[in-house]
Amino acid sequence: MLHFTFLGTSSGVPTLTRNVSALAIRNSKNKDWILVDAGEATQHRIQRTKLSLQNLVAICITHVHGDHCYGLIGLLASAGMNRRAEPLTIIAPKEIQQWVETTARLTDLYLPYPLKFIDVHNAIHPQHITDELSIQAHSLSHRVPSFAFSIIAQYTHQKLDIQALTQLGVPKGQAWGDLKQGKNIEFNGNILKSADYLQTHTQQVHAIVGGDNDQPELLTQACQTAQLLIHESTYTQTTLDRVGKSPMHSSAKMVAEFAQQQHLSSLILTHFSPRHQDHAGQQAIADEVSEFYKGNFYLANDFDQFTLDTTGQLSKVNLK
Amino acid sequence: MLHFTFLGTSSGVPTLTRNVSALAIRNSKNKDWILVDAGEATQHRIQRTKLSLQNLVAICITHVHGDHCYGLIGLLASAGMNRRAEPLTIIAPKEIQQWVETTARLTDLYLPYPLKFIDVHNAIHPQHITDELSIQAHSLSHRVPSFAFSIIAQYTHQKLDIQALTQLGVPKGQAWGDLKQGKNIEFNGNILKSADYLQTHTQQVHAIVGGDNDQPELLTQACQTAQLLIHESTYTQTTLDRVGKSPMHSSAKMVAEFAQQQHLSSLILTHFSPRHQDHAGQQAIADEVSEFYKGNFYLANDFDQFTLDTTGQLSKVNLK
Repeated sequence: MLHFTFLGTSSGVPTLTRNVSALAIRNSKNKDWILVDAGEATQHRIQRTKLSLQNLVAICITHVHGDHCYGLIGLLASAGMNRRAEPLTIIAPKEIQQWVETTARLTDLYLPYPLKFIDVHNAIHPQHITDELSIQAHSLSHRVPSFAFSIIAQYTHQKLDIQALTQLGVPKGQAWGDLKQGKNIEFNGNILKSADYLQTHTQQVHAIVGGDNDQPELLTQACQTAQLLIHESTYTQTTLDRVGKSPMHSSAKMVAEFAQQQHLSSLILTHFSPRHQDHAGQQAIADEVSEFYKGNFYLANDFDQFTLDTTGQLSKVNLK
Repeated sequence: MLHFTFLGTSSGVPTLTRNVSALAIRNSKNKDWILVDAGEATQHRIQRTKLSLQNLVAICITHVHGDHCYGLIGLLASAGMNRRAEPLTIIAPKEIQQWVETTARLTDLYLPYPLKFIDVHNAIHPQHITDELSIQAHSLSHRVPSFAFSIIAQYTHQKLDIQALTQLGVPKGQAWGDLKQGKNIEFNGNILKSADYLQTHTQQVHAIVGGDNDQPELLTQACQTAQLLIHESTYTQTTLDRVGKSPMHSSAKMVAEFAQQQHLSSLILTHFSPRHQDHAGQQAIADEVSEFYKGNFYLANDFDQFTLDTTGQLSKVNLK
């Protein structure tokens, strides 16, 4: 399962209820987690969750705009002050590497752990982060180069070939247990090799987290295997028509129509303009999504948590 | 009067109750205010006060360490998104100018208002920021060049020379009123010039706000005319002795002894190590100050407000 914690859902500027962009995605089988975007004060948000900077395995930055990255350097510094020693992977536009390195030099910052920068253009090919987690980038359309990230958890487990063992007449119990644990056994005078009776099963959880983008259809290919799309919906279509296309953001309608065409089972919208953050503003977004998308959808709030399981089931965590 | 709002009082890293360094100082005669230091999420703190980025007249950065400046760029960006047009003065080490300009370039940030950078070394001479506010920098001792800032409000007003007018027999009322408003009057066949009967009175409020520093005595000269010193007290002396001198911070004892020697009437301590932020830690700091300093002192908390009037009276604002 993947476990999502929204750390910031506001577009452009923080507001009293929503911070600028950041999303934590944890592998629910352990404590490993990935951070997508790090707007200013992301570390302050993290302090109010159970997530630890010690277990952070990768940071993805969707694009260079400040509301998606200005919290990166403070977060790296605090991880250092808390004596993080493990290397940390950062997948981002190369300007982010320049910014981090220049900032460290100008502000006398020395990190006690190595940063492994991967230019986001190279992450068009899947990057294996841990045994179970991998990340792949997809190009989007915005005022600066912007990317979405596929976050993929792949779980493999070994199953006994019960049908074969039953046909052979191997009794359940000790014999099956030994084979399952990789031991060869003797049966009716023959050696049965464990490897011959173990089958590898793989299950995958795949979520796509978009950066700022005015062409959701760019994710068509990526969505073929995705169970969840998390995408910006800065405005309603009415607001976007008034604001004009120059900010290069998506409306709720644009994202909803795309998700419907793709038959996506689940959709979470985020990155709301301050004008759409009050009750009426959120309702207008929700109404627009409902009109054009018939799947399971949520509008994210800061600190909302969700799980996505291997069957593709998205559930909102009840935080009471 | 000067009006102080502490926006961050933690050393090094934010904690759940205290943010990293920032202090707002407002001229209580209008809405003009100065920000000293801008740790990450200073703009988030400002959102929870009545201060507006539109009325900010200057930002002083004491030194380049991240817990004193990483919030600067996000704050400048948000002021821009809120359509600030007035120029903004930044007095800081020159690395801060490089950092802001490089960050703006790498992150596609365009501010709709001009920044006027003043190298802090040049601010060793007083810098007039508004008609009433001026700033002067003083060198401190830390791991990187660090500075304190004198924030000085100078209030002038015109008073009638009542003694002279009474001796001449000029009656109160219309005649005095006209002279006060700058009009010349005729009296007993003579022209009395307003300028001859107006006296300029000047009152000054002077607070010193220190950056990180392990030699409070460097402020001896500056303290000659100051009514208030705001200084870091990262540790108690016991903790400092254990940590060692290499972080180059002050203990409560060091600052208290200095303030006592200078006969300073008021002292506010801030920038506490996370280990001194619980009740016992704060009490240990307070006990140490009490032992060595007999004046009026406070340990600052985030969002604490104080006023300093022209008589040098420091008062904590009761926020209910």
